[in-house]
Amino acid sequence: MGTGGRTAVQDCYPDDVAHCFGCGRLNEKGHRLRTFWDGDGTVARFTPEPSHTALPGFVYGGLLASLVDCHATGTAAAAAARASGRPLGEERVPPEEVPRFVTARLEVDFRRPTPLGPELVLRGRVEELTDRKAVVDVRVEARGEVTVAGRVVAVPMPGGMARRRGAG
Amino acid sequence: MGTGGRTAVQDCYPDDVAHCFGCGRLNEKGHRLRTFWDGDGTVARFTPEPSHTALPGFVYGGLLASLVDCHATGTAAAAAARASGRPLGEERVPPEEVPRFVTARLEVDFRRPTPLGPELVLRGRVEELTDRKAVVDVRVEARGEVTVAGRVVAVPMPGGMARRRGAG
Repeated sequence: MGTGGRTAVQDCYPDDVAHCFGCGRLNEKGHRLRTFWDGDGTVARFTPEPSHTALPGFVYGGLLASLVDCHATGTAAAAAARASGRPLGEERVPPEEVPRFVTARLEVDFRRPTPLGPELVLRGRVEELTDRKAVVDVRVEARGEVTVAGRVVAVPMPGGMARRRGAG
Repeated sequence: MGTGGRTAVQDCYPDDVAHCFGCGRLNEKGHRLRTFWDGDGTVARFTPEPSHTALPGFVYGGLLASLVDCHATGTAAAAAARASGRPLGEERVPPEEVPRFVTARLEVDFRRPTPLGPELVLRGRVEELTDRKAVVDVRVEARGEVTVAGRVVAVPMPGGMARRRGAG
């Protein structure tokens, strides 16, 4: 699959579940993170704003946790779609074929301070995928160095969580 | 110590390390979370904005992780100050006596969806405090129900992280 297609996983979420502050394409105030296939893994890129600081010169850990979280649920959705024959490459996939995942557990190891300024690269890898859950490993790189390692247990969205599921 | 004093831990951080997006009193775009003593534990309150959504009607997990993170490092700082005889009650404590902590590891269990709308209450409790680290348990409550449980390993800020340490 080379360096991935031009369709982000989040481009395929149904409209009614596309408002997440971290990755919803319809949240005008949010981060709008976009997750792409990149070979056997996934990739997303994000450049923090100056206000996204922890201590001066370094990225706020809450933002890093947020990016890990959304890239992981996106990776889980992409993997589930691919497992059912939808690789999310060049074409937009019908929303009903991209299952939406939510996070059950988030673990983030801040290995070293993440410099504020350069674009961050997030790399995701699915460790486990079943009908009940996905376990996703995410690394955050700044200037080519891994600064953060995350692990997310994501589960398919419970039926009651979307108020108008299927409206997209 | 009753219901805690009027001084938040974050009120006591030196100016040069008071810009965190989550809890820095000097970050005009950030959340400015404030952590207070409440008996043997700590408490913070935060009402998310409408944009802080995950799926419609529920709070974005990245924000919840951020609040857990900052309330935990605040709790660690408060506990370290108290351990050296500064309970952070009614009076502002000199910045040099409130050690600043950073997060080494963050774990968040999203037990149930957190409703978007009501004020959230964060309760912190120190599980372990040594010269090298603090382990802090944080629960998030919405309408009196715990929706999120977090655990943070915080460590004293490495000397090289503050550019102008002591300028506060």
